[in-house]
Amino acid sequence: MNQKRIRDYGVNIGYLETGKLNSITDVEGVTVGHLTISDQDIQTGVSAIFPHQGNLFKDKLIASSHVINGFGKSMGTIQINELGTIETPIILTNTLSIGTAADALIEYMLEHNPEIGRTTGTVNPVICECNDMLLNDVRARFITKDHVFQALSNATSDVKEGTVGAGTGMLCYSLKGGIGTASRVMKMEHGTYTMGVLVLSNFGILSDLKVNGKPVGSELRDHILKERDEQDKGSIIMIVATDLPVSERQLNRIIKRTVTGLSRTGSIITTGSGEVVIGFSTATKIPHEKTAHCITVQTIHEEDIDLAFRAVGEATEEAVLNSLVTATHIVGRDGNERPAFKDLIEKYNVNLI
Amino acid sequence: MNQKRIRDYGVNIGYLETGKLNSITDVEGVTVGHLTISDQDIQTGVSAIFPHQGNLFKDKLIASSHVINGFGKSMGTIQINELGTIETPIILTNTLSIGTAADALIEYMLEHNPEIGRTTGTVNPVICECNDMLLNDVRARFITKDHVFQALSNATSDVKEGTVGAGTGMLCYSLKGGIGTASRVMKMEHGTYTMGVLVLSNFGILSDLKVNGKPVGSELRDHILKERDEQDKGSIIMIVATDLPVSERQLNRIIKRTVTGLSRTGSIITTGSGEVVIGFSTATKIPHEKTAHCITVQTIHEEDIDLAFRAVGEATEEAVLNSLVTATHIVGRDGNERPAFKDLIEKYNVNLI
Amino acid sequence: MNQKRIRDYGVNIGYLETGKLNSITDVEGVTVGHLTISDQDIQTGVSAIFPHQGNLFKDKLIASSHVINGFGKSMGTIQINELGTIETPIILTNTLSIGTAADALIEYMLEHNPEIGRTTGTVNPVICECNDMLLNDVRARFITKDHVFQALSNATSDVKEGTVGAGTGMLCYSLKGGIGTASRVMKMEHGTYTMGVLVLSNFGILSDLKVNGKPVGSELRDHILKERDEQDKGSIIMIVATDLPVSERQLNRIIKRTVTGLSRTGSIITTGSGEVVIGFSTATKIPHEKTAHCITVQTIHEEDIDLAFRAVGEATEEAVLNSLVTATHIVGRDGNERPAFKDLIEKYNVNLI
Amino acid sequence: MNQKRIRDYGVNIGYLETGKLNSITDVEGVTVGHLTISDQDIQTGVSAIFPHQGNLFKDKLIASSHVINGFGKSMGTIQINELGTIETPIILTNTLSIGTAADALIEYMLEHNPEIGRTTGTVNPVICECNDMLLNDVRARFITKDHVFQALSNATSDVKEGTVGAGTGMLCYSLKGGIGTASRVMKMEHGTYTMGVLVLSNFGILSDLKVNGKPVGSELRDHILKERDEQDKGSIIMIVATDLPVSERQLNRIIKRTVTGLSRTGSIITTGSGEVVIGFSTATKIPHEKTAHCITVQTIHEEDIDLAFRAVGEATEEAVLNSLVTATHIVGRDGNERPAFKDLIEKYNVNLI
Repeated sequence: MNQKRIRDYGVNIGYLETGKLNSITDVEGVTVGHLTISDQDIQTGVSAIFPHQGNLFKDKLIASSHVINGFGKSMGTIQINELGTIETPIILTNTLSIGTAADALIEYMLEHNPEIGRTTGTVNPVICECNDMLLNDVRARFITKDHVFQALSNATSDVKEGTVGAGTGMLCYSLKGGIGTASRVMKMEHGTYTMGVLVLSNFGILSDLKVNGKPVGSELRDHILKERDEQDKGSIIMIVATDLPVSERQLNRIIKRTVTGLSRTGSIITTGSGEVVIGFSTATKIPHEKTAHCITVQTIHEEDIDLAFRAVGEATEEAVLNSLVTATHIVGRDGNERPAFKDLIEKYNVNLI
Repeated sequence: MNQKRIRDYGVNIGYLETGKLNSITDVEGVTVGHLTISDQDIQTGVSAIFPHQGNLFKDKLIASSHVINGFGKSMGTIQINELGTIETPIILTNTLSIGTAADALIEYMLEHNPEIGRTTGTVNPVICECNDMLLNDVRARFITKDHVFQALSNATSDVKEGTVGAGTGMLCYSLKGGIGTASRVMKMEHGTYTMGVLVLSNFGILSDLKVNGKPVGSELRDHILKERDEQDKGSIIMIVATDLPVSERQLNRIIKRTVTGLSRTGSIITTGSGEVVIGFSTATKIPHEKTAHCITVQTIHEEDIDLAFRAVGEATEEAVLNSLVTATHIVGRDGNERPAFKDLIEKYNVNLI
Repeated sequence: MNQKRIRDYGVNIGYLETGKLNSITDVEGVTVGHLTISDQDIQTGVSAIFPHQGNLFKDKLIASSHVINGFGKSMGTIQINELGTIETPIILTNTLSIGTAADALIEYMLEHNPEIGRTTGTVNPVICECNDMLLNDVRARFITKDHVFQALSNATSDVKEGTVGAGTGMLCYSLKGGIGTASRVMKMEHGTYTMGVLVLSNFGILSDLKVNGKPVGSELRDHILKERDEQDKGSIIMIVATDLPVSERQLNRIIKRTVTGLSRTGSIITTGSGEVVIGFSTATKIPHEKTAHCITVQTIHEEDIDLAFRAVGEATEEAVLNSLVTATHIVGRDGNERPAFKDLIEKYNVNLI
Repeated sequence: MNQKRIRDYGVNIGYLETGKLNSITDVEGVTVGHLTISDQDIQTGVSAIFPHQGNLFKDKLIASSHVINGFGKSMGTIQINELGTIETPIILTNTLSIGTAADALIEYMLEHNPEIGRTTGTVNPVICECNDMLLNDVRARFITKDHVFQALSNATSDVKEGTVGAGTGMLCYSLKGGIGTASRVMKMEHGTYTMGVLVLSNFGILSDLKVNGKPVGSELRDHILKERDEQDKGSIIMIVATDLPVSERQLNRIIKRTVTGLSRTGSIITTGSGEVVIGFSTATKIPHEKTAHCITVQTIHEEDIDLAFRAVGEATEEAVLNSLVTATHIVGRDGNERPAFKDLIEKYNVNLI
C-alpha cells in the first residue's frame, strides 16, 4: 500500500490509533482481493473480502447487516440477520452484475463444500453493489464468473484502494471514488482489539464534501463545477470487521454507527443510494454442524461498547476519504469522466488541514 | 391452581409434555402476582411477573420483545431490544392505567436500588396493557400505585387464571377472557429445559374460536350470538419465560413463534389489537456493573431451536385456551357482560374433543 | 385449472367468498407463468408472477415484503421496503439458481427498458427461492436464463398448481408440495376487491399437517411414516396480490397476516426455512419519472382493514392446501420420492372434512 | 425569541433558507409550551409540542418514529409505527417522570374526548424523555400532572430555547444543553414547504463538539476540562414537523436523516443514550371515524425527497447548536453544574466561524 492516503496529507481523523496497516486487514485473518477491468467503455470490477482464512461455511462468524438506505440490490442480508452469521466471503461489484456474482460465489462455495445440497442445506451468498453507470457501460454486464473467481484468488492483506476492483468505475462527491479502508485500535481492560472498515464509495455531490470538518467540497466546487448541477444517485457499501468479542446484537449496534463517520464526510444520504453495512466479528466461530453442547460466546460488557462506536465512526470517515484521495482519473463510457481528488488538490493547491 | 383447565376437558395441545404446573412458573425463579378489583363498574386489576427472585436491576436477564400488532401502548420494548436485557418485573394492566403503573414500577425499583439516578443511570419499566373498556369503567383510571405494589407483593409460583389481575375485565373470542398460562418441557442432548407462557387475552370474535382445530366458536355462535355483530377491538399480551440458554436473537426468534399458537386458536390479528410479546431467558445473568472481563454467554446451537419453536407455539395455544376456560362470568360497567366459556360448555353440553 | 383442488374434497376454508378462479389471477392484471423441468435427477423449474400487464418499471406498484423467517436467499426485499414499490415481475426458483434467475430478470428488464443504466438508474430484480435438494440435483444448477425467459413468456391467468414450475421438486408436510393459489372477495362500502395468494410450499413435517383444523397429518403418519424421523428444512414463499387501495404500510400489515393461515395448516415455522412474503396492490400506479405534481394515493380507512386480514389468512391457508392436494408424485434425484397427498387420500380413504 | 442563537454568532449551517422564525413552529399549526422548575436540587420541567391546533384525536396526522439508539423509555412509538398516525401532543420530560407524564396526557385527552373508552377505543400518549440526573434530583420525581397541564396550556409559536421546559436540567457536550429548534424552507415545483426540528439535547462529551465542522469542543476542552474524564450517558429527542405531503414511509425516511445533522455536531451516539425521533406531517388529516370512502393522500414523488433529507439534516444540526448556545448556567443538585457554552465563548473569546 504505497498509495498516498489521507493521513499523508496531514489529515488525522478522530482520537484513536490506527492499526498497523490502517486497513480492514489489520483484523487478523481478513483479506481482500480485487479484479479490475478498465478498458474504454468498460470500467468496472469485483472486490472480495474474506472474513477468515479457514472454511467459513463450516466455521461461521457472528455477523450483522444494516441498511442505512435501501435503494440497493444487496443480497444475503436476510439470512445474516436471522441467523446472526456469515458463511461466505463478501463480493462487491456493479449493480447489474449481482446475478453473475451470486452465481459465481455459489459455485465457489459448492466446490469447497461438497456436502452443500446433499447432506446439508444450501448456502447464503453475500453480494453488495453500487451503480457505476456513468463511467462504465453497466448494461454490458461485462463481469463474468471468472472475474469473481479471480477477485477471490487475488485476496491478500495488502489492500489496494481507489480506482480498483468494484471501485473502478465509482464516483464520490462528484469526483472519482472507489475502494477505501482504515482501522482503529481499541484498548480495553481485557485486551486490545481492532476495528477495520472497507468502503466502496459511490455517492455525494461535491459541494457537500467535508474533510475532517473542513468544507473542502464547496471550495473546490467554485473551481470546477460551477456550471454543473450534479445529482446524487449514489451508494456506499461498508464492510466492518473486528476481532472484538460481541454478540450479533452488539455488532449491529456497532455497524449502525458507520453513519456518524459517513455523515461527517458530508453525506445527506440521498434517496437513490443503496447504503448497506455488513459486519462480522472474528472472535467466535459458530460451527455449522450441530454440537452436542451449547456454544460459548464471549461478549464485551455493554459499558465497553462506546469505544467500538468511536472506532467504527472514525474508521468509516477515514475510509471514505481514503477512497477519494487514492482514486485516479479515468475516462470511461462515452468519454465520461470525473476528476480525481488528488489531482485537484495539486492543481488548486488545496490545503486539507 | 385448582381451576378446571383446558386439559381437564380432555383437550391436549400438541406433542410435548407440560411442566409440573403447566405454568410459566415452571421456569425456575419465575413468579406471578395478581391484584383484582371487581366492584360493579370497576372490573380491572394488575398482574406482575418476576423473571427471577434476585435483584433484577443488578442481575439482568437476556430478553427480547416482539410486536405482532402495534395498536398498543406497551412500554419498555425499545430498551429491551436495544440492550437485549430486562431489568424490572413486568406489569400488566388496563390501557389507561399505564402511566400509573409505570410510575409505581419506577418507585418500586428506586426503593430497591438507591443508586439509580445517583451513581448509575435510570431504569426501564416494562408495562403492557389491554383495553378492558366494555366491562370496566376504564376512564375512571381506578388503578393506583398501591394496587401495583400489591400485585408485586402477591407474586407466587401458584398462578391464578381467568378473571383475575389484569385479566379481570378482559374479553376473548366474545367471551370472558383474561389470564392463562401453560408450559412445555424441552429435552435436548445437553439438558432438559422449560418453556413457559402467560397470556393476557382480550381479542377475537366467537365465530373464529377453534379448540385444538375444532370450530367450537362457530358452533357456539349459533346458540348465543346470532343477533350480534361483534367487532374485535382486542389485544393479547404474551409473556414467554424459559431457562434455555439463548442469545437475544435466538430468543426473539422463539417469541415470534407465539403467533403460531395464537393463530391456531382462530385469531386473525385484527387492526385494533396490541399484540405484544415479551420474552426472557433465566439461563444467563448479565451484570449491571461493568465487568473487567468479557461476559460468557451459553447459547444453544441453532439446530436445537426447533424444539423451542414447537414448545412456545403449543404453550401459547394452551395458555389462550386456559385463559378462556378458567374465566368466570362477571357483570361489569353499565351492566355489560360476556358469557364464561365454561358456563357455555356446560349449558350447551359442548364436546371440546 | 381442471386440477382437483381442496374445495373439490369438500373442504371450505373460512367465511369469505372466493374469486372467480380462486386464484391470485383473480386480481385484474396478474398473470403467472411456469417452466417445469422434470427429468430423472433434475426436478426443478421457474415460476414468474406479473403484477400487471403494462411496463412495470415505468408504472410501479405499491409493494411490501415481510420476512417471517429469514433462512432464505430472496433478493429485492431491501428496495421494496425502502421505496414501497415493485418494478419487476417476481421470479421463483430453487435456492442455488437465484444468481441465474437474477441475471435473467435483469436482462429481461434491460431489453424492455433501454433507458435503464443510461438515462435512468438501475432495476431491482425480485427473486424468491426454496430448496428442492431432496428431489432435485440442486448442485447441478440446471436452470438457465432461457428457462426464466420461458416462464415469463408462459404467463397466463390460468394458474397450474402442484408439481409445476418452481414447485416441481418441492416438498410440504413430508409430502409432495409446490405451487398453490387461492383468492377471496372483499366487499366494502366503497367497492368490491380481491385478495389473491400464490404459494411455493416446501416446509413442514407430516405429523403437523392440519386440514381446516383436522389433524389429518398425524393420522396419515401412522400409515406411512412410522419409521422415519422427518426433519423440516423447508421454506415457503407467499405472493400476495390485491386491488385494494392501500398504502405500503397497510399492505405490510396485510401480508404479515399470511402467518395466520400458514399456522393453521400446522406450521411451527422451523429454523431452516426461508419464509418470505411479497405483496403488491394494483390500485395505484407510481410513475418512475418524476412528476411535476404530487402523487394521489387512495387508501382504505384503517377500520376497513380487518376484512383484508381475514381474506389473506383464508387465502393463504387454502393456497397451501391446494399446493399439497394438487401435487403429483415424482421420483427424483437418486430415486428420492415423497408421496402425493391426493394418492394417500385415495389409498387410505381419508376423509378431509 | 430574543435569545442569541447560533446564527447570531455568524454560524450558518448548510445551504437552505430558514423559515421565518427558524423554529419548528414555522410549520403552520405547530406550537410548543414549556413548564420550567428551577429551584436548587430540582432542575427539571416539561415541554409539550402540539402538531396542530384542532382536535388531534379526531383528525390525526401522518406520523413516524425512529429509534437511533434505544437506551430510552419513550412511549407511544409502537402505535405510531403500526398505524402511521399521531393522535396526541408530544410530551418531553425527565426519565423518571414518564409515568406521571403519560397519566397526565391521558387525562388531558380523556377530558377533550369524552368518547374515548366509551364509544371508541383508547388513546396513544406520546412521551419522550432524557435523564437530567446530574443537575436535577431525578429520584424526587418532582413533576406532577399539573406541571404537564401547564406545559400544554403554555403552548405558543414563540419557542424559548436552552435551559427551559424539559431542557432545564439537561447537558450537552459536557456543557449545559436543553431545548433547541430550527427550520428550513423547501421549494419544490408544486409548492413551498417547511421542515422544522425541535431537540431536547442531553448527550456528548466536550472534546467531540464541532460547530459547523470546526472542532470547537476540543479547543475548549483544553481550557476547562483537562482534569475531568467525562463519560457520555446522554440522549437526544428530536421532533420533526413538516407540511410536506408525504406517506408515513417517506416521513420515516426523512426523520432517519436527523442522524446526519446530529453526527456533524460530533456525536458518536454512545450506548447510554435514548436517541428517538418523532415526526409528523400536517399535510393530510386522517379522520378517526371510519369513512365511507377511501382516504386521499397526497405524497411527493420520491425524486423530490432529497431536498427534505437535506432540510432535516441542516435543521437538526442547527437545532442542536441552538440548544447549546442558548442554554444558561445553573447550579443544580448537590451543587452540580456545567458551564454554559455562551459564557465560555465570551470568556475565552472563541471564534465559532
